[in-house]
Amino acid sequence: MRVVVNAAMSADGKISSRERTQIAISGPEDFDRVDELRAASDAVMVGVGTVLADDPSLTLDSEQRRTDRVGNGDPSNPARVIADSRIRTPPDATILDDAAPTYLLVSEAAPTDFMEEMEDAGATVIAAGDDRVDLPSAFEQLEADGIDQLMVEGGGELIFSLFAADLVDECSVFVGPKIIGGRDAPTLADGDGFTEDFPALSLKAVERLDEGVLLQWDVP
Amino acid sequence: MRVVVNAAMSADGKISSRERTQIAISGPEDFDRVDELRAASDAVMVGVGTVLADDPSLTLDSEQRRTDRVGNGDPSNPARVIADSRIRTPPDATILDDAAPTYLLVSEAAPTDFMEEMEDAGATVIAAGDDRVDLPSAFEQLEADGIDQLMVEGGGELIFSLFAADLVDECSVFVGPKIIGGRDAPTLADGDGFTEDFPALSLKAVERLDEGVLLQWDVP
Ligand SMILES: NC(=O)c1ccc[n+]([C@@H]2O[C@H](COP(=O)([O-])OP(=O)(O)OC[C@H]3O[C@@H](n4cnc5c(N)ncnc54)[C@H](OP(=O)(O)O)[C@@H]3O)[C@@H](O)[C@H]2O)c1
Ligand SMILES: NC(=O)c1ccc[n+]([C@@H]2O[C@H](COP(=O)([O-])OP(=O)(O)OC[C@H]3O[C@@H](n4cnc5c(N)ncnc54)[C@H](OP(=O)(O)O)[C@@H]3O)[C@@H](O)[C@H]2O)c1
Repeated sequence: MRVVVNAAMSADGKISSRERTQIAISGPEDFDRVDELRAASDAVMVGVGTVLADDPSLTLDSEQRRTDRVGNGDPSNPARVIADSRIRTPPDATILDDAAPTYLLVSEAAPTDFMEEMEDAGATVIAAGDDRVDLPSAFEQLEADGIDQLMVEGGGELIFSLFAADLVDECSVFVGPKIIGGRDAPTLADGDGFTEDFPALSLKAVERLDEGVLLQWDVP
Repeated sequence: MRVVVNAAMSADGKISSRERTQIAISGPEDFDRVDELRAASDAVMVGVGTVLADDPSLTLDSEQRRTDRVGNGDPSNPARVIADSRIRTPPDATILDDAAPTYLLVSEAAPTDFMEEMEDAGATVIAAGDDRVDLPSAFEQLEADGIDQLMVEGGGELIFSLFAADLVDECSVFVGPKIIGGRDAPTLADGDGFTEDFPALSLKAVERLDEGVLLQWDVP
C-alpha cells in the first residue's frame, strides 16, 4: 500500500493554533490539488483528533472527479479511515455519513457496544493493537480490502506515528504565508518526537502555489 | 533598525528535538549563506535559551569576510545580543568572549550583582521591561548605539515575541530534509502563539539549497 501524507502548515510548522480550530493556511490552487489527490486515492485517513476538531467529510469537492471515478468503476468518493483506539468519534460525525464507506481503526481496548454502534452507523470496524491502533497491522487489513493508495490528511499525532512506524512513502506539505506560533499548537509531526535516527526525506519537487509553496518529499 | 530572522527547521517545523540539543538541519551551502548574512549585519541576536542549549559564538567563519569588514571600517565580527531577563547566561559562555562586543538585554528584575558581573566580563548591559525584556524599547537603545541591521538566529521563544511585537522585517527559513517530530520540540515560533490576527508574510524567494529549500519571507 502506498501512503501519501498531505497537509498544510504555517511558515513556522503549525497545522492549527493552540485552540485547535481549523485555520485557512492555503488557498484555491492548493484546495484543488488536494481534491485531485483525494480523487486519485482509494481512501483518505485522519486521526480522531481531527474528527473531533474539524468534523471533516473528506469527500471530493469536484463533481467532475466523482463522475470520472465512477466511469473508472470506482466508488464516487474514496473511502474514509479514522484512527480511533477507543472510539471517540461521535455517532453523528460527518465522516460517518453515507457519502462514502468509512473504516474505523480501533484497538482491542475499544468498548464492544461502541463497536456495534459504529457498525450500525455503517462503518467497518478493524481492531488492531492492545491499547492503541497498531498501524502496520491495521494497514495490512486495509490493503487486503483493496486499498492500494492511502492519503493521510493529519493531524500531527497520527503523522508522527506513521513516520515512527516507517509507513510513509511520500509527504506533500503546503507552507503558507503566515505565522501561527505557540509551543502548544499542533505541528505537522507531533507525538513524542525523534531524538536520533530522524527519518530522512528527499526533496522531489518545489512549486509556488497560492501565496505559499508546495514541498513534495519522498521518503526513501 | 532592520530585523532579519534566520533559522533552519526540519520539514515539520522543528528547530531542535525535544532534548533541545543542536541538530544538523542544513548543510555547507546554507552555512555559507548564514555566514554571509552575519557578515552583512551589525549584530547577531539569540535568546538565552539558545545560549544555554548551544553555547554559540555567533562569530564569522570566513576569515575573508572578517578582513572585508575591517576594510570597510567595521569591527571584524558583528556584535552579539542576548535577550536574558534575569541573567541566566553563564559568565563563561562563549558569547561573552572577546571576539566581538556583546549586549545583554535584561529586565529591571535582573539582580544588580549579576549585571555588574556581566559588565566586568565585558558585556554592555541594557535594562528594559519590568520582568521580561521589553524588546521594542531595548531595540531603540541598540539602534541609538549604531545597530542598523540586526540578524536574529533564534530560538523559537524569542522569534515568537519579535513577531508579536511586530518587529520582524524579513524571515529566512531553511527547510531541511528530515522529520524531527515531538509536541514538545521547539519550533520556529513558540511562545503563547496567535489565535487570530496571524502575522502575514509575503514570499520573496524560494531556492533549493543543500538537500532542502530556502524560503525567504518579507513581513509587510
Ligand atoms: N492543516 C492541516 O492540513 C490539518 C489537517 C488535519 C488536521 N489539522 C489540525 O490538526 C489538529 C488535530 O491534530 P491532532 O494531532 O490533535 O490529532 P490527530 O492526529 O488527527 O488524531 C490523533 C489521535 O488519533 C488517535 N490514534 C489512534 N491510533 C493512533 C496512533 N497509532 N498514533 C497516533 N494517534 C493515534 C489517538 O487518539 P486515541 O488514543 O483516542 O486513539 C490520537 O490522539 C486539529 O487542530 C486540526 O484542525 C490540520
Ligand atoms: N535550528 C536553528 O536555526 C536554531 C537556532 C537557534 C536555536 N535553536 C534551538 O532552539 C532552542 C532554544 O530555543 P528557545 O525557544 O528555548 O530559546 P530562545 O528563544 O533562544 O530563548 C528564550 C528565552 O529568552 C529570554 N527572553 C528574554 N526576553 C524575552 C522576550 N521578550 N521574549 C521571549 N524570550 C525572551 C527568555 O528567558 P528569560 O525569561 O529568562 O529572559 C526565554 O526563555 C535550542 O534547542 C536551540 O538548539 C535552533
